[in-house]
Order: sequence, then C-alpha cells, then structure tokens
Amino acid sequence: MAARLLDGAGLARTMRADLQPHVHEFTARVGRPPGLALVLVGDDPASHVYVGSKRTHGTEVGFRVDLHQRPATTSLEEVLDLVRSLNADPAIDGILVQSPLPAAMGSDAARRVFETIDPAKDVDGFTAENVGRLVQNREGLVACTPAGIIEMMEREGLTIAGTRAVVIGRSDIVGKPMALLLLHRHATVTIAHSKTPDLPAVCREADILVAAIGRAGFVTADFVKPGAVVIDVGMNRVTDEADVVRFFGEGSKRHLAWQQRGSVLMGDVHPRVEEVAGALTPVPGGVGPLTIAMLMKNTLTAALRRQSL
Amino acid sequence: MAARLLDGAGLARTMRADLQPHVHEFTARVGRPPGLALVLVGDDPASHVYVGSKRTHGTEVGFRVDLHQRPATTSLEEVLDLVRSLNADPAIDGILVQSPLPAAMGSDAARRVFETIDPAKDVDGFTAENVGRLVQNREGLVACTPAGIIEMMEREGLTIAGTRAVVIGRSDIVGKPMALLLLHRHATVTIAHSKTPDLPAVCREADILVAAIGRAGFVTADFVKPGAVVIDVGMNRVTDEADVVRFFGEGSKRHLAWQQRGSVLMGDVHPRVEEVAGALTPVPGGVGPLTIAMLMKNTLTAALRRQSL
Repeated sequence: MAARLLDGAGLARTMRADLQPHVHEFTARVGRPPGLALVLVGDDPASHVYVGSKRTHGTEVGFRVDLHQRPATTSLEEVLDLVRSLNADPAIDGILVQSPLPAAMGSDAARRVFETIDPAKDVDGFTAENVGRLVQNREGLVACTPAGIIEMMEREGLTIAGTRAVVIGRSDIVGKPMALLLLHRHATVTIAHSKTPDLPAVCREADILVAAIGRAGFVTADFVKPGAVVIDVGMNRVTDEADVVRFFGEGSKRHLAWQQRGSVLMGDVHPRVEEVAGALTPVPGGVGPLTIAMLMKNTLTAALRRQSL
Repeated sequence: MAARLLDGAGLARTMRADLQPHVHEFTARVGRPPGLALVLVGDDPASHVYVGSKRTHGTEVGFRVDLHQRPATTSLEEVLDLVRSLNADPAIDGILVQSPLPAAMGSDAARRVFETIDPAKDVDGFTAENVGRLVQNREGLVACTPAGIIEMMEREGLTIAGTRAVVIGRSDIVGKPMALLLLHRHATVTIAHSKTPDLPAVCREADILVAAIGRAGFVTADFVKPGAVVIDVGMNRVTDEADVVRFFGEGSKRHLAWQQRGSVLMGDVHPRVEEVAGALTPVPGGVGPLTIAMLMKNTLTAALRRQSL
C-alpha cells in the first residue's frame, strides 16, 4: 500500500490564508503592516531564489517586506551595522539574514550576524536566546523548518504523544530543535547521526522518522517501520543520470526532467520508502513550502508580541 | 558479577585538587581570588545543607565565597536587585541562587531570577543564553550535574562516542542538557520520560543509562542491558521501613541506618541493578559530589573568561 503523501505546498497555502486576516487586523490596529527585513549578501543563486520566494509570500500575506541586497564584497562589519539599524527600526518586526554568507567574511560570520539580531526580531530562531527558550519550552521564536513540520503534523492529525520518534541529523537549525519540539509534545525522541551504529535498525524503531542529513535517497525502505510517518527534510540536487535512473527508474518523470534540465531535486528519502511508510512528505512540495509559511507565521508572532497584542 | 562502582566523591576531590593551582595562579595574576556569590532565600533545610557545602568547597579551593542569606519574607524585587548588584560587582565571577525560592514569590520567580543573572556569571548554566549555547555546542557555562557526569565519564575512560545512551527524565537542568552533552560526544541519544511506552525495553537499548526521574528505586534490573554504564542522578529520601527492607533487605546497613534516623537516602536506581550493570554511580557519593565540584570548575572558568585569560 502506498503511503499517504503529505501535501506541504497545499498546507502552506492554507497557513498563509489563515494568517491574512490576522495581518490585516494588525495593520488596522497598529497603523502599519508587520515589517520583515530580508538581508541578502552576495551572489549565491539558490539564496536569491529562496529570498525571492520569501519576499513574494511575505508581500502576499500583507507584510511590508524590505529587501536589503549587498554585494559579495561587503564587510562583516557593514552587515552587522545593517542588522543593528534594523534592530533599532520600530517598523521592522522580523529580520532574516540569508545563509550562506560569502566565504570571504570568515567561518564565524554567520554566527556573529545571527547573534547580533534582536531575539525579539529573530524570526529564524537562530539566536542562543531563542534556542535556549526552546529547550526550556518557553515563549520564543523557533526555527522555521522544525516548527513548520510540527504545524503540519498537528494540522494533519498525526499523533506525536506516546510515539517513538527518530531524528536523523543533529544540525542546530533542524535536527536538534526538531528533537526538542517532538520531546515537548511527549514523543520519546532519539537523535541519530553519522556515528550511529546500525542506523537502519535504530530508525526502524520510529513511529515518526525525520530525515535531515543532506544525502540523496539515503533513507531506504529498510530504515522504515511499516506504517511510520516519514518526514523528508533533504533537498539534494542529483546530476548523475545513473543515479536518477537508479532512484526513479528508466523513463520515469524525474528521468525525463533530468533529460531536459540536467539535474533533478530529491530528498534524503529513497522513493521506494513510499511502499512502506504510512505517510510521507514529498520532495519538492513537502517541507520546503512549510518552512517559508512558518517564517510568515513567526514574523506575525514577533510583530504581535512587540506590540504586546 | 557486581558492577564497578564509580566513586564520585573521590573524583570530586581529585577535581578540586586539580583546580587549586589554577585558582592560585588566577589570584596571583589578577590580584584577587575568583569570587562566588551564593544567594539563599528562606528556610529550606536541604538548601541550607547544599549552600553550606558549596561554601565550604569554594573556600577550600581558594575562592572568595560570599553568602547572601535572606529571610523567606524577601520580595522577588529585592532578590532581583541583589542579583543586579552582583552582576555589577567586578570582584564577583559566579552567581548562584539556590532553588527552590519561597513559594510565596510566585511560580515564575526562579525563572525571573535566573534570567536576571549575567550569562557570563551564570555558573549554574540556567539562563536561556547559556542553554542555547550548549545546544549550539559553543563556549558557555553548562549545568553542573550533567557537566559533572561527563567529566566523570571522561576521567574514568568510559566510552561515549558510538554508544547508545538513554536519558530518563527531561528536566531543563539535568535531562535535556545531559542528552545534548552526550549527543555532542557522538552518542546516539534517546530521551525517555513518563509518557514513554515500554520504558524498560527502551532503556535496555542503552550502553549508557542516565536516570534522572526522582523516584526511589524506579530503575530495576530489567531496565538495564548487562554491562551498561548506569548513572543515578536521583536523590530520594525513603521514610517507610517496608520500602527500606524491600530495597535493601532486613538487617542491611541502610535498614540499620533507617532504624537510627527514620529515613535513608537512595537514588532512582534499584540496588539489584548492581548485579547487571557494568559500572554504576552510588547514591550517595556518586553524582552529588561531582555536581558541587563542577560548580567550582564553572566558577573558575567564568573568572578566567571574564579576565580573557
């Protein structure tokens, strides 16, 4: 039996539609719309696509969205100054600095920039203050990808309490916050990673399996307990035709797409997991749109809290 | 075969002895000793014992220890003012406010007091800033009990990387930071709790089992994989003679102790686990002394960082 596909794109549309009346009410009461500042430094093509999408969706839900674009030659100090001025701007409720920053800024640049963002405007949930509040299950702003996954699971009526959940990957922006959010909803949570012995066996314990590793098709059917909910956070570009054929089959839709574009996008979860899982997020169209919808929700949340509404 | 008993009290003595030359060097270079401020509000007898022990050990390693004792009638605002003055005092490197605060201060009092402590002086590691830094595996101050357990495991040569660890209990001050510390040392970590189905089976997966629940003798032999390392964070007072006899046997040392004092202390781990585990921390004399030794180490660390040493 094929897994139920969780329509992240559709849910994201619903989430944005649900936000709109609240955004209009905020604008009417406060006399200005919620303000979201997007900071984009350098020429990374994927970053331009992401920021463009955030801008479009933000504008659609009724925010004021300011895009601050800077060349790759910008100094770290200039970015920090920009963030400080956005912190001080009363019409800005959310600040998002798109990663990655240009390598020339140094390996610690992103961390220094994130830590300069006022935690009350930190709509990515990346500051230590917001991460600590998440651990302590207190009011704060939570990283958009894991928060979006929880929102989807709750809207889809998927049970979290009392389940066993396994999160593969221990990044600061997905794996660790995901584990904490599931824990606070009373799952028994295991965090697995590259050093986990017999990873497939550990993953087969999971009623909820979250894959956030960044390796195309890594999670094969033998990782999955029959009927489990599988959340695929990966977004990998596959360029080798042999890989595309191996994953999706000769003459498949993805194979045809590869023939047209020379690459296809796929998640960390192997296509055949669909035959084992109970529910599954597709890639693309699963977690990605939820992440951006959650950014909109975080921005509204930040705006409301800053007005004590 | 009986488990090897991990001598927390002995290790704590070694840790303190290791600190002493660094404390003397700090004092010589900076012209004053590291300063630790202990704040004790109200009449809780256990709190008086704990604070007394922290004061004694701090003085022994060469700190200046200031005890700020206040009556149970003190207002929250007075405690916050005291903390603010300690934040501003350049001779104070570490601030510890003993929990619990008097109930009359309100349920949110401890949280408000902890958040007022300068994160650079937060030697308990309770502020959101320090908790967030722990998640992000960055320099900060880490809660003393889990940090002390890691210190013990490393000094005892117990392997963490590549193991499966299960932490029972998800408190902010033990369970969650413990899980993060083990994760960062490459264990595959599961956080289990009261809502975990078939808890004994989950715990039997563990090479390292940390019990931090607060229920006397709850972790029985059937929770433990033979040879596992079992860390007992519990410290429970048992007053019922029938319980003492059931746990330790008629005429046992603890039973005799109960006959003299009317109660005995014991951990979350049942005495018979000693027959199954590979290594085990006793209660008392295991995790407790390590916690206080770690407080000393955190205070020295805070003092050195504040001087950029």
